[in-house]
This record gives sequence, structure tokens and C-alpha cells, in this order.
Amino acid sequence: MRQFTTERAWGGFHDPKSVLLALVGEVGELADLFQWLPASEAAKLGRSEPLRTRAGEEMSDVLLYLILLADVLDIDLAAAAHAKLTEAGRRYPAPAD
Amino acid sequence: MRQFTTERAWGGFHDPKSVLLALVGEVGELADLFQWLPASEAAKLGRSEPLRTRAGEEMSDVLLYLILLADVLDIDLAAAAHAKLTEAGRRYPAPAD
Amino acid sequence: MRQFTTERAWGGFHDPKSVLLALVGEVGELADLFQWLPASEAAKLGRSEPLRTRAGEEMSDVLLYLILLADVLDIDLAAAAHAKLTEAGRRYPAPAD
Amino acid sequence: MRQFTTERAWGGFHDPKSVLLALVGEVGELADLFQWLPASEAAKLGRSEPLRTRAGEEMSDVLLYLILLADVLDIDLAAAAHAKLTEAGRRYPAPAD
Repeated sequence: MRQFTTERAWGGFHDPKSVLLALVGEVGELADLFQWLPASEAAKLGRSEPLRTRAGEEMSDVLLYLILLADVLDIDLAAAAHAKLTEAGRRYPAPAD
Repeated sequence: MRQFTTERAWGGFHDPKSVLLALVGEVGELADLFQWLPASEAAKLGRSEPLRTRAGEEMSDVLLYLILLADVLDIDLAAAAHAKLTEAGRRYPAPAD
Repeated sequence: MRQFTTERAWGGFHDPKSVLLALVGEVGELADLFQWLPASEAAKLGRSEPLRTRAGEEMSDVLLYLILLADVLDIDLAAAAHAKLTEAGRRYPAPAD
Repeated sequence: MRQFTTERAWGGFHDPKSVLLALVGEVGELADLFQWLPASEAAKLGRSEPLRTRAGEEMSDVLLYLILLADVLDIDLAAAAHAKLTEAGRRYPAPAD
């Protein structure tokens, strides 16, 4: 993503508020795919074509803007997410079984 | 994330529409952090503490719900995102030099 | 809303992208209220307290930022919405019964 | 809006989580219109055609889903918004002058 952006000199457009609004736009497209599906069938339909491929595309767009925002803010997103999960693991321990 | 969820038997809650609304909630918290910052200073402020850590936490939440949704839909998000970038590279080629 | 804003000289903060991100933040809070409710019970729970009052507050926040954005853009939102409904009525006529 | 929906017997689709996702979709379309505009020109461009009409349409869609959600939840949105503004007026009094 960084290489893609740098090669095209798009950095100037990437103020955080613009990237955030672009991310919101992609989340909206993702919501569009699922909004009117009955909740009880949404998982099954979402795992079937053609919805699965469409959902993967929109989720990729969300992810790419999230990565772009991390890049703009100089944030190591993988490390931050890992820290979040570790913290959640402490707060909600798995049952010992 | 999958291990975390499986260990806690949270799978039953993870219908796609619920996960999507949870993702929207986290995007909202991320938007809250930047909404009133002047656009011209948002990048600089976002790279400085305390905003940088806070942004990383909210972005992690967005990412984790995105990964959870991919898991629910049995989507390989990394592969889908890579395909998206490859396609974008074809449509918007980098300048030659 | 306009009077409220004018009296407090908040106009300078009201660039459209900031107001939009504030609106996204409120939509996120609204989504938080419903995300984990079973779809089949969400309407009934949403019509009961304490959720009904909470939802009304978050929906008000969304509405107020929408009105503020209309004001910033000099848009007559009621007229625009009426035109939309009239157009939708033409495209999806009611059954004659 | 209520008349429009009732005439078409669309009530069955209107569980709150679906309407919320539809609202998110429209907010995404609204964000799309502004995302890459320079913040310093967004208000001026948003007050000019063709953006002003497009923004009015997307904002109407957001408003109509908000009204539909209020209807589903039996919430008097105008009263709720008025109460919110009155409360905000108490918390942030206007300067006396």
C-alpha cells in the first residue's frame, strides 16, 4: 500500500480526515451488501457467491484505507492490534475447561 | 482473533449484521478523535501523543472486527486485499521513471 | 440549531468534513446500542425502556449534525427530503389495492 | 415516510438493525462526496452546484432512514431533538452580551 501510494505521489491527499471519510464510504458500501438480508440467513448467504466475493472486495477497501491511515499516522497497526487482543485476553479470560 | 473467539464460545453472537454494526461503532470512535481537528494539523497531531496511541487503539478495534467478519464469512482478507491492490495497480499505473 | 450555533460563535468549526465526521461518531454510538441485540428482538427492545430513550438521544444527535450540515451547505433539508420521497413514490408506486 | 412505507407493506423489512445498516450506507455515500475535497474549500464547493444538489439528495436519504428508524421504535424524533438542544443550551450557555 505504501509503495503503491509513494509511486503515485498521492501522499499530499492523505490527510487523516479525508482518509477517514473514504473509509466511512467503504464501510457504507459493505453495509449496503448486508442491510436487507434476514439476520438468520446473512452468514450463510455471505459465505456463498456472489455475495462472498463482493464482501471480500468491500472489506479489502476498508482494510486498505485503514492501512493508509496507519501509514499517514506512522502507526504500526499489527502491533497495536496485537496489544489490544492481549489486553482483551486479560480482561476476558478463556474458561479453563 | 479466531482462537480468542473460539475459546470463549462467542461464535453464536457473530452474525454478520451484528459484527458490521460493531465495526461501525468503532469507526465512529475513530472519527470522534479527529472530527474537530483543523485539517491542516490533523496529520501532525495524529502522529503525536496522546492522539497517536488513542488512534492506534481505535484502529485496532476496527481491524479486529474486520478480521472477525472475514472469519464469519470464511474470507481470506489478506488475499482479497492483495488482489484489490494488484487490480488498482493495473488501473492506475505508476509513472514510468 | 442555527440560533444555538450563532449565539456561541461556533461557525468557524463547521467545515463540512468536520461535521460529517461528527455525524459518523453519532451514528457509531447509535449502532453501539443495537449491535448485539438479536435481530428478532431488536424492535421490541428498542421500543422499551431504557433503550428507547437512549436511542432517541443518539438519533437526535445524528439529526442535529445533519441539520447543522444542511445549514453549512445552505440546503433546505425538508424540501430536499420531500422531493426524494415524491421521486421514490413515482419509482415504486403503491399497489392500487 | 410512514404513509409511503405502510402503503407498500414494507414494514416487515424494517427491523432496527437493517434500517441502521441502510442509514450507514447513505452516510457512506454522503462521505464519498466530500472525502477528497480540500477542507478549506469544502464549504464553498458544497454550496455550489453540482455538489449542493447531490449532497441534498444523500442527506435526504440519511434523514429518511432516521425517520423510518424513529417510526420503527415509536420515537418522536422532533421532540427528542428539541430536548437535546434545550439540554445543550443549559450546559453551554450563550455568552451574555
